[in-house]
Amino acid sequence: MIDKTVIEAQNAMRTPDLDRDFDYLGEKLDRRGIDINQMVDRAKEFGLAVPSWGTGTGGTRFARFPGPGEPATIFDKLDDCGVIHSLTQAAPTVSLHIPWDKADPQDLTAKAHQHGLAFDAMNSNSFQDQPDQIHSYKFGSLTHTDAATRAQAVEHNLECIEIGQKIGSKALTVWIGDGANFPGQTHMGRQFERYLSSMKEIYKGLPDNWRLFSEHKIYEPAFYSTVVQDWGTSLLTAQELGDKAMCLVDLGHHAPNVNIEMIVSRLIHAGKLGGFHFNDSKYGDDDLDSGTIDPYRLFLVWNELVDAENTPGLDLAHMIDQSHNVTDPIESLMISTMEIQRAYIQAALVDREALAGYQADNDALMASATLRAGFRTDVDAILGRARLSSGGAIDPVMTFRASGYRAKVSDERPIANGAGGGIV
Amino acid sequence: MIDKTVIEAQNAMRTPDLDRDFDYLGEKLDRRGIDINQMVDRAKEFGLAVPSWGTGTGGTRFARFPGPGEPATIFDKLDDCGVIHSLTQAAPTVSLHIPWDKADPQDLTAKAHQHGLAFDAMNSNSFQDQPDQIHSYKFGSLTHTDAATRAQAVEHNLECIEIGQKIGSKALTVWIGDGANFPGQTHMGRQFERYLSSMKEIYKGLPDNWRLFSEHKIYEPAFYSTVVQDWGTSLLTAQELGDKAMCLVDLGHHAPNVNIEMIVSRLIHAGKLGGFHFNDSKYGDDDLDSGTIDPYRLFLVWNELVDAENTPGLDLAHMIDQSHNVTDPIESLMISTMEIQRAYIQAALVDREALAGYQADNDALMASATLRAGFRTDVDAILGRARLSSGGAIDPVMTFRASGYRAKVSDERPIANGAGGGIV
Amino acid sequence: MIDKTVIEAQNAMRTPDLDRDFDYLGEKLDRRGIDINQMVDRAKEFGLAVPSWGTGTGGTRFARFPGPGEPATIFDKLDDCGVIHSLTQAAPTVSLHIPWDKADPQDLTAKAHQHGLAFDAMNSNSFQDQPDQIHSYKFGSLTHTDAATRAQAVEHNLECIEIGQKIGSKALTVWIGDGANFPGQTHMGRQFERYLSSMKEIYKGLPDNWRLFSEHKIYEPAFYSTVVQDWGTSLLTAQELGDKAMCLVDLGHHAPNVNIEMIVSRLIHAGKLGGFHFNDSKYGDDDLDSGTIDPYRLFLVWNELVDAENTPGLDLAHMIDQSHNVTDPIESLMISTMEIQRAYIQAALVDREALAGYQADNDALMASATLRAGFRTDVDAILGRARLSSGGAIDPVMTFRASGYRAKVSDERPIANGAGGGIV
Amino acid sequence: MIDKTVIEAQNAMRTPDLDRDFDYLGEKLDRRGIDINQMVDRAKEFGLAVPSWGTGTGGTRFARFPGPGEPATIFDKLDDCGVIHSLTQAAPTVSLHIPWDKADPQDLTAKAHQHGLAFDAMNSNSFQDQPDQIHSYKFGSLTHTDAATRAQAVEHNLECIEIGQKIGSKALTVWIGDGANFPGQTHMGRQFERYLSSMKEIYKGLPDNWRLFSEHKIYEPAFYSTVVQDWGTSLLTAQELGDKAMCLVDLGHHAPNVNIEMIVSRLIHAGKLGGFHFNDSKYGDDDLDSGTIDPYRLFLVWNELVDAENTPGLDLAHMIDQSHNVTDPIESLMISTMEIQRAYIQAALVDREALAGYQADNDALMASATLRAGFRTDVDAILGRARLSSGGAIDPVMTFRASGYRAKVSDERPIANGAGGGIV
Repeated sequence: MIDKTVIEAQNAMRTPDLDRDFDYLGEKLDRRGIDINQMVDRAKEFGLAVPSWGTGTGGTRFARFPGPGEPATIFDKLDDCGVIHSLTQAAPTVSLHIPWDKADPQDLTAKAHQHGLAFDAMNSNSFQDQPDQIHSYKFGSLTHTDAATRAQAVEHNLECIEIGQKIGSKALTVWIGDGANFPGQTHMGRQFERYLSSMKEIYKGLPDNWRLFSEHKIYEPAFYSTVVQDWGTSLLTAQELGDKAMCLVDLGHHAPNVNIEMIVSRLIHAGKLGGFHFNDSKYGDDDLDSGTIDPYRLFLVWNELVDAENTPGLDLAHMIDQSHNVTDPIESLMISTMEIQRAYIQAALVDREALAGYQADNDALMASATLRAGFRTDVDAILGRARLSSGGAIDPVMTFRASGYRAKVSDERPIANGAGGGIV
Repeated sequence: MIDKTVIEAQNAMRTPDLDRDFDYLGEKLDRRGIDINQMVDRAKEFGLAVPSWGTGTGGTRFARFPGPGEPATIFDKLDDCGVIHSLTQAAPTVSLHIPWDKADPQDLTAKAHQHGLAFDAMNSNSFQDQPDQIHSYKFGSLTHTDAATRAQAVEHNLECIEIGQKIGSKALTVWIGDGANFPGQTHMGRQFERYLSSMKEIYKGLPDNWRLFSEHKIYEPAFYSTVVQDWGTSLLTAQELGDKAMCLVDLGHHAPNVNIEMIVSRLIHAGKLGGFHFNDSKYGDDDLDSGTIDPYRLFLVWNELVDAENTPGLDLAHMIDQSHNVTDPIESLMISTMEIQRAYIQAALVDREALAGYQADNDALMASATLRAGFRTDVDAILGRARLSSGGAIDPVMTFRASGYRAKVSDERPIANGAGGGIV
Repeated sequence: MIDKTVIEAQNAMRTPDLDRDFDYLGEKLDRRGIDINQMVDRAKEFGLAVPSWGTGTGGTRFARFPGPGEPATIFDKLDDCGVIHSLTQAAPTVSLHIPWDKADPQDLTAKAHQHGLAFDAMNSNSFQDQPDQIHSYKFGSLTHTDAATRAQAVEHNLECIEIGQKIGSKALTVWIGDGANFPGQTHMGRQFERYLSSMKEIYKGLPDNWRLFSEHKIYEPAFYSTVVQDWGTSLLTAQELGDKAMCLVDLGHHAPNVNIEMIVSRLIHAGKLGGFHFNDSKYGDDDLDSGTIDPYRLFLVWNELVDAENTPGLDLAHMIDQSHNVTDPIESLMISTMEIQRAYIQAALVDREALAGYQADNDALMASATLRAGFRTDVDAILGRARLSSGGAIDPVMTFRASGYRAKVSDERPIANGAGGGIV
Repeated sequence: MIDKTVIEAQNAMRTPDLDRDFDYLGEKLDRRGIDINQMVDRAKEFGLAVPSWGTGTGGTRFARFPGPGEPATIFDKLDDCGVIHSLTQAAPTVSLHIPWDKADPQDLTAKAHQHGLAFDAMNSNSFQDQPDQIHSYKFGSLTHTDAATRAQAVEHNLECIEIGQKIGSKALTVWIGDGANFPGQTHMGRQFERYLSSMKEIYKGLPDNWRLFSEHKIYEPAFYSTVVQDWGTSLLTAQELGDKAMCLVDLGHHAPNVNIEMIVSRLIHAGKLGGFHFNDSKYGDDDLDSGTIDPYRLFLVWNELVDAENTPGLDLAHMIDQSHNVTDPIESLMISTMEIQRAYIQAALVDREALAGYQADNDALMASATLRAGFRTDVDAILGRARLSSGGAIDPVMTFRASGYRAKVSDERPIANGAGGGIV
């Protein structure tokens, strides 16, 4: 999609500075006893999933302002994901959202393979009605008081698994908007029991080598109570379902002030951390680009993950989940991929032996400074070298702009209007 | 719209209990030295504005689930407002939103008069693009970096004033979504200066007997910064514009934990309180029905207003601003009207002389108990008697349901689909 | 402590109005099919525990302003608790805090029996150092990196159990301040493991008919992370410990905006709800008087409890946990007792059959209104009649003031200075 | 206080790496068109004030855990401040807190001069009672309902000015704890009027070349309402007082989620920004070390300040205001000084011309990336070089530890017990 010669020309311009920065950083890390090439290897091995819906322009309840060249079909979306991966070399998988991304499985895999992509977790939708839908989700889906509506939502999730099996996915992520807007609207205990009952039906249909991710969120679209409102309820859910059920942490789905890295630690303790939906936020589920609002928080999450990386059984699914309202989605997804990768490498630089010593001695000041030393290290040269040696771009955004891709697809793709489908 | 005989029949069923409750409450208030009939008079004199857009079903960025019989035009909306007022006798005005409510002014006033309604503050929209719009508001309206875009938004506001003059409105409410989603996206200082500059252009076009309301909101749709983010910025705006510029307080537009009644007090001190957008919320700008989440907070706001009711120059505009996602909008607007009226009457019952004494003595316990004594009084009988004697319904919701209005308009009105226009 | 003749004289003044209000309320409830006398019985059976430390004046890190006649010893505190119970007839137990309340068990039970009091849950303290303490808790207690410090804290908890057994207590509440002020200061995973390990030591020492309450709190005194930060971690703890370990919910220990009644519902589902620390708050762990900031939230918590009251195995410990900085602690504790009791009775008035019907029909508006109908009912007459018929005061605060108790103990008790011990 | 030879020996160890890092950074900044020496000059010119009380160990309402060698007198505190400045070369002033720091002015200035220190803003205290105080501040100070209490608090502030004049201070910072713990406890409007009236009395006593700083805080110690709760009220205050009255922003005194850099921008617009109390926080007024929780937020504040640094009349007072509960206060104050300085230099590195271009073009992605490019630059070498060339330590903390200062003063100073005076 992006002409190799464009990438090469852009890289050629930036290689001298990169080499210089890399050499210096190598020397500096060497002083700390760190081999920079191991960090490059880490960066190269890192990969996350891009959500298919993230390639379109997002919006709010007030408006959606479409951008040029938005993808109209899942195949357009896969093309965009291909661009993201080819430039960053760190986004090798795509996460689909059903029903919007429904298509012939063979066509899907063919298109994905063309871009060197694979499919990550499947995402079901029971928070929005579709034109052909029999039962409305206005008052709930998996938790609806009406058994037929619940059955319909269960069936939809089972279909997601079925599609996923055909395209090589190994996980289903369930996020629902069910809850209530008013005290009393639902019986919170019985609603949760209906949720568990529906989830058990879905779990029954889960292949042995699949996992089921339960995703919590404090509010929105429900504004008084949400069925899976926090990690405690997500944990209860995963415990009741069984070993294949895990908890997914979206960074923007918590109450104000909550210490998210601590939730990560607790879920690791409980053996129930399944993965992440990365984004950043200042107020609510703002779905902003990862690392743009509070980059240290992102680092602290990765600090827990690197610390626990040798935990037996820990196998995490990393996905971006953002809404790009004022930027080019491809650019935002590339920046976000690199910010997440950056936080991971910074966390990998933390001197854990020294840290453990300071913790044992209750030397809070030096322990805290030890984390900051990792965070403060400018790892651009590691990330750039990793991309370069994998065939990506040293500067993905500038290379993307130089490629003329957006203008090209703008000519080819119809203009998207209105709120469109599948806004998240 | 609602058959008088239905109202009478419903009232007849409820009059004996109402009389009984009223007599007892009268006796009880008499013990406290309060004349119940004065409270009935207060209730009868109370009136607020219904937002035209509130008569449609609201939604979130995830979905909108239409209800039956939604209004398709401003005339349908006025019919619904007429129902609300005829049953509650406390919602005599309607607040229009331009461009959605644009129509021939004579037709508007004719329809309004038919229902005994008048028009309250005009609301402009520069947070959503319209099909025929030249400049997009994607990156701002009154604060856009492009002068032509700002001029377009100013012009739109001036048009709102022009329309308003023809239908008897006396105020313009300006709420904009302008802000930024990322640190650095805008220069916050210069953006505010552009805002003030645009507002001054609008202010110039304001008739002498009009007022301009500036409405703040902490976030959404902008997720990093919002131009008029809090009452401090709203105050600065009103100060710079002049005497006709006032601040509007929406109960759901604040940071978590903020003491809203205190802001009310401060704006009264500054001589800049203009009015309210009533609703309730638990998390963000949830736009839930007034008094359904934290009724005591609503009471405390009214406590400030009743306390200050003799302040020279204080002339408040009271409007509901809610989003009805899971209820019948007419029912929610009636309930909300009555909850707001209830809080007002409860606040009027507070023994202010005793309260002042406890405050002077720093008897925090009794001062606090004195407020609660007002809040705790069940004033249903006062509100019911006020409605009954004004020709309304003792129980508006049950009477509305008995009337068959919703079923009737469901047959007449086309089914609304998708996100529709003017969701707030 | 309070002269019976004072109570009788005060009650005599208020009986005519009470009778009048009671008759009317009885009639009104009868319309709803509720027998008022059953509600009086419920109110009479209701009882909660007063915290011994609540009888002293609280403070903040900035200052403590002592009041007159503060209790100097646990025996003074028991006298004050006796006053509270004798006037409200709803606070029959006292919860002790060790080491401050250490005394000869026989003296303790003798004094308690004198006032008709019993002892509720024991509270340990490992968040503050004592003069004779070997290991400091500056950097933690049950989670300290040093094994000897942890052992000391475990030993202290075992001593609390030992004392409790001698005075008839049946539960131990463990709340610790352990956590960290900086990212990196502690290893969050290992710290939690040390916590569990220490708690297991304590659990081993728990008699068969005792329960162990784990109490979570989001922050303070630790300002970056707290070991038991939320109900999820509290649940994990209770699950790992065993059947006698339960979760305690303090209303002020949550992140902003969190739906507390939902946590109550989830803990009931998990079979792990142990009880409450009642108070109210606007910002953080403000420890204000119950029902004075958001009375509807208190009602909604009770709505869950009444709804679940027939759940097998549900046996809740209700305690007040407040800090009285600007009021007379006895008065605040009496008001709080009655506000909690009020919320309970209001919740008992909810028409649960109708509510279940509205929930089944997704009639959110009427479901919500059904809850408010309970909340809005002025149950003063039920509470007053319950107190009167149990030998308490119709108006405990006015009766207390009339009794001259505070002046009397002010003469007898030494003036408390400074921050004093055991401020919470 | 710190032996020069220790500093020199420590610096000698670190100079080779510093030189290497400095050369590389110089080269890297040169690519961006930035002269590193100008940045070193900026760093050398930077200075902030250390609060005298910050040199002691802080605490919470639950406990205070003293550290070794805590300062017992203001002269001890000045010694500690001398250490901080001698090692960091960036903390040349001290801010006193009266009454705790009262002493003979000549002795104060002599001691300060000995350390090369001067005195910054004076801080009054009317949130805590003193042993010899006639009127208690339990129910308020400058806003008390009792005129004599208000007069006493005014008089105390005037005394602070008087002391300040003798030692070369040029500003008075007023922060009060006045407010209410319960709705109704105070009349919020009249309380604010009493505040303004008292402040006017203080303002009258302000010398012409002094400034008066009004400091807002959302809550604590008052838990329902605080008189100066936010920047809006602080602004109203400064406006009513006059040109010498300015607003002070403490980073930890805001509601959750509030965009602080935006408040900075608004106060600059209003011509009323006076200065800062720097610290960091995760939940409330946690008073943690600057830059340890959300370093990007600190950077964004500095981004506004650097952007506005040529604003006529802008003259900011920068002070640290932290509570050091688990660290050595000297170490924390040094780290904080450097973190604040770091954020300043990082902000100075932002390419403002490019940024303005991206803002004009609404290129949100690149605008945001431009800020991050500044933040991400590791400026350690600039800060180290600045310290070195001013006679300070390349690594102040390690040098401090090597000096043995804390052990030495621990031998000399009496052990501090209990809550001590002036905890904030």
